[in-house]
Amino acid sequence: MTNFPALHKSLHSYREGFPALANKAYFNYGGQGPMHQSVMDAIMEAQTQIQQLGPFGNEVGRWIGLTVKATKEAIASELNVPANTMTLTENVTVGCNIAMWGIEWRSGDHILLSDCEHQGIIAISQEISRRFGVEVTTCPLMDTLNIGDPVDAIAQHLRPNTRLVVLSHILWNTGQVLPLEKIAEVCRNNNSLLLVDAAQSVGAIPLNLTELGVDFYAFTGHKWLCGPAGIGGLYVRPEAKASLKPTFIGWRSVILNDRGQPIDWNPDGSLYEVATSDYPLYVGLKEAIAIHQQWGTAEERHQQICRHSEYLWRQLTALPNVKCLRTSPPQSGLVSFQLEKQTPQTTLKLVQFLESERLFIRQIRDPDCVRACVHYFTLESEIDQLVAAVQKFELS
Amino acid sequence: MTNFPALHKSLHSYREGFPALANKAYFNYGGQGPMHQSVMDAIMEAQTQIQQLGPFGNEVGRWIGLTVKATKEAIASELNVPANTMTLTENVTVGCNIAMWGIEWRSGDHILLSDCEHQGIIAISQEISRRFGVEVTTCPLMDTLNIGDPVDAIAQHLRPNTRLVVLSHILWNTGQVLPLEKIAEVCRNNNSLLLVDAAQSVGAIPLNLTELGVDFYAFTGHKWLCGPAGIGGLYVRPEAKASLKPTFIGWRSVILNDRGQPIDWNPDGSLYEVATSDYPLYVGLKEAIAIHQQWGTAEERHQQICRHSEYLWRQLTALPNVKCLRTSPPQSGLVSFQLEKQTPQTTLKLVQFLESERLFIRQIRDPDCVRACVHYFTLESEIDQLVAAVQKFELS
Repeated sequence: MTNFPALHKSLHSYREGFPALANKAYFNYGGQGPMHQSVMDAIMEAQTQIQQLGPFGNEVGRWIGLTVKATKEAIASELNVPANTMTLTENVTVGCNIAMWGIEWRSGDHILLSDCEHQGIIAISQEISRRFGVEVTTCPLMDTLNIGDPVDAIAQHLRPNTRLVVLSHILWNTGQVLPLEKIAEVCRNNNSLLLVDAAQSVGAIPLNLTELGVDFYAFTGHKWLCGPAGIGGLYVRPEAKASLKPTFIGWRSVILNDRGQPIDWNPDGSLYEVATSDYPLYVGLKEAIAIHQQWGTAEERHQQICRHSEYLWRQLTALPNVKCLRTSPPQSGLVSFQLEKQTPQTTLKLVQFLESERLFIRQIRDPDCVRACVHYFTLESEIDQLVAAVQKFELS
Repeated sequence: MTNFPALHKSLHSYREGFPALANKAYFNYGGQGPMHQSVMDAIMEAQTQIQQLGPFGNEVGRWIGLTVKATKEAIASELNVPANTMTLTENVTVGCNIAMWGIEWRSGDHILLSDCEHQGIIAISQEISRRFGVEVTTCPLMDTLNIGDPVDAIAQHLRPNTRLVVLSHILWNTGQVLPLEKIAEVCRNNNSLLLVDAAQSVGAIPLNLTELGVDFYAFTGHKWLCGPAGIGGLYVRPEAKASLKPTFIGWRSVILNDRGQPIDWNPDGSLYEVATSDYPLYVGLKEAIAIHQQWGTAEERHQQICRHSEYLWRQLTALPNVKCLRTSPPQSGLVSFQLEKQTPQTTLKLVQFLESERLFIRQIRDPDCVRACVHYFTLESEIDQLVAAVQKFELS
């Protein structure tokens, strides 16, 4: 647990910028990341700026246009894609909805999900199935956490009529990192589109979406990127755009003629955007990204996250009555584990006990376990505290 | 221009609470309302509270649940409906999308729009038409601003296969207030659902949606209610709910079993909600509504708005080279007018000239005109300034 880049200011002073970290040991980055004070300040300054310039008028309209552009550029720099492939959304699930409802479904089409997808994805699939006569099946990736090959599992479950495959880059329950490049290749060879739920990956691992070759990549700014809740996005691969029609639509989607009538779709990602958002949140996310990039490259941040998750994993594995889901060190910041004599009631009790001790982790219901997340700025001492408290709960 | 309720503190001191009003004369309430400082403070305090409690954990989850409930109750009190009929959305257009995509369209169905709808509504209709083979036509309401009956115009354009009628409660371009109760009756008698774009009505006129009998009423908090951008809502009449399926879906829409799998829709309006929002905005809107309600009843606020719009209308009508679209005093806070020798270029020039003089109005492209909005806290002196500047532009 050394390796903290000497160039950066000390971790403790860095962490002082995040008010949420002052009164707790925090392990819920996969639920929501804490905001840096400068992010909150940037949001408030933008709010003030909008009031000063407008809130509605020509000058403030220009300011908002530049803000949207700058935010898309900041996100694009993290994902390594052109900014014009970016659609801004309210959250990751809206991005998934855009991708899933934008395909022109035919009765008899097939959607393949992994068995580790979030409830929102499952509910969307069920409703699309009901409305359009589309078949939905799942392929077992949960069992490939320690042995087996997720690419094989997917390949075996693809069908000739599989129009869309939906899976997460990092599985939110087990923390498994899927080999997306190979999966994208298998899907492409089957003429299936690939939608990735990137809730746990954006801000956590180095990304080059252009190289990965995924079709749709939906993410949020409020988890690992530590931006405000209420802003996320969707990347649409230029080659996949013709396959994706806009569903929820508004003035941001269209080009108008001189009578104010919509005559065409916007050529960039705003095609899938709707109407007025709280633009100060955009400024907040841009600032959050800037803070991470000042700390280190995506590669450096990811290495540090993995050092921390390995440290946590090793200590938990050493506890007699705890079982980590993974049998080898995690490849991500998500560390899921179970107690001996595990029931959903004991899991909930553990989470509640830990929160009462100011240690924040969350319950996962399938598989029945708890999940602790570590970020690059997690403290070794926080991890020690968590492990000691889990041990204390076990003994109690 | 007297009648300012003696019970209330003076208008000037009231207006000092709105930073946006300090450096301009503001007439764009129909575009975006200014935020009271206490609204901005409430947003920031909520942001701080979330960081202090979480941002993600059991306690903050409970706090967010109470916040959502309180916000729905505050909005419901303005609309005179039960809080469980409320869906919170990002903006008015998302509410319209929920209503328009949630109908299970059959090829050959018909949608009737008014000829004064916003570009977003038009674009949604066009895409639904393309995807499902639905026919879209418009009925001429623009011409009923001064003579004729909009109810007759709608009745004449309904067809046996009209599934949905979409129109605005207050037309955003001409400011006409439609007689919704009668229109709702005509639609009901034709077995047509009625979606109302309430962008210009919520926060501007007294409402009792239960009595009005509309099926879907989509609104935003950031215009006449003067809340933050990024929060709006949709009212769904309980009797119409069975006709409206959820389209964009997420964890807020569903009930889970103990394995975290969605097993049913939420019984209240959250059925149509998706996933994480910026909850501090909810707190801001609740505060904005409270400020209006402290000033006066919806009836009192509306009367004051109409006094102001009549005052503006009379002065503009008296100018030799200006023509108000209405030939009698407005029934809303929207006052649309044209210049003699009107072209889109002169309209744009007028708006730009006025903004350079710190007077904020907007251009409307169909009919080619400009629109000035007055709120209950507009100053008579602001109106005088606007009229003088329009006259000055005319003479220049």
